[in-house]
Amino acid sequence: MRLRGKKHTIEVLEKQTDLVILEPAKWKGRWHELFGNDRPIHIELGMGKGQFISRMSGNNPEINYLGMDMYDELLRKGSEKARRVWKEKGSDEVPNLFLVRGNVELLGEMFEDGELERIYLNFSDPWPKSKHAKRRLTHPRFLEKYKRALNEKGEIHFKTDSLSLFEFSLNSFSDSLLQMRSISLDLHRDELREDLVLTEYEAKFVGQGKPIYRLEAVIGS
Amino acid sequence: MRLRGKKHTIEVLEKQTDLVILEPAKWKGRWHELFGNDRPIHIELGMGKGQFISRMSGNNPEINYLGMDMYDELLRKGSEKARRVWKEKGSDEVPNLFLVRGNVELLGEMFEDGELERIYLNFSDPWPKSKHAKRRLTHPRFLEKYKRALNEKGEIHFKTDSLSLFEFSLNSFSDSLLQMRSISLDLHRDELREDLVLTEYEAKFVGQGKPIYRLEAVIGS
Repeated sequence: MRLRGKKHTIEVLEKQTDLVILEPAKWKGRWHELFGNDRPIHIELGMGKGQFISRMSGNNPEINYLGMDMYDELLRKGSEKARRVWKEKGSDEVPNLFLVRGNVELLGEMFEDGELERIYLNFSDPWPKSKHAKRRLTHPRFLEKYKRALNEKGEIHFKTDSLSLFEFSLNSFSDSLLQMRSISLDLHRDELREDLVLTEYEAKFVGQGKPIYRLEAVIGS
Repeated sequence: MRLRGKKHTIEVLEKQTDLVILEPAKWKGRWHELFGNDRPIHIELGMGKGQFISRMSGNNPEINYLGMDMYDELLRKGSEKARRVWKEKGSDEVPNLFLVRGNVELLGEMFEDGELERIYLNFSDPWPKSKHAKRRLTHPRFLEKYKRALNEKGEIHFKTDSLSLFEFSLNSFSDSLLQMRSISLDLHRDELREDLVLTEYEAKFVGQGKPIYRLEAVIGS
């Protein structure tokens, strides 16, 4: 998602050292130190406006969350969302979430091997042209990066509304010898699963009756 | 598919010892002897009226084919179809195909371990109620039977028009640690693949613009 940066956005972000990490490579190997505990770290790659990761952080205080995106404007919106979610819970602080400016290409420069326990990929860009297949976040070259960054209990949770991206991804996970489970070709078919936190995109698609595709892949199997 | 047996059907079948095998368990471990060569054996489980397996046998004379179904009336129709396909090729004989009366439950009584090289599952009964999940031909209990009957180059080729059966099957193959490839969520999306032989059901569904789901699974990976 491309957004024009508002003037002063970077200044707003630079002030939020309690929530926003603009140079994540500095924390490679020290993320648990940053969180101040040894709890598992779950990251969303491409968090967009941050609704999913903010709600997850509010719902699961025992997990450390990271939301990553490339664009300052999204980090700003994400920071507002995260503070709002925790404000509603009566907290002026966001105790278990950092929003990270970063590019998935450089994942290995941000995380030590095994430093993460779960990766969420929600409604990633489908890059429909075959000449752009390598940019899809479920391309085997990315899956190799995820395998390295995840620990032995590591999982990848992927959902999309794109049939073509899901088909590509099924083959990609299979080729990469990642065991899949909980594969769904219509996530909200039976009922709206209230236990699953919806992204902004997802709520829109579900409202239109479009199917959502989902799978999990596990590392240590 | 349940069909009332026509009177005399069994007599028609009993006369066709060159094409129809009514007691397949007798050939366990000796199927290559029956074919008179060491070429790979490909079987379709649930051949219906036999269009797919008949055409495959006509298109690929270097492969040994078996078409299996439970119902005499289907075996009779299959035998007519197979003879017609080969007649059109100028042959009074069907050199590389046998039609087998059998129940997939008893696969292990019909085939020695590793005696088959490929299993086709085309438009198997989806058994949509969860209490009938064990009857689905892609249930892990059947996949274990297939693994045993297939050799080290063995493959399973599965296609269906049922979204729910395909979703179940993706999970089932994955749980059974069978590596999948060529997964398609809309087989005929881009163009009608002329290299793939269509079943009777499939031609109908494709004509209606309905998606066909397909995957392959490989044994020795």
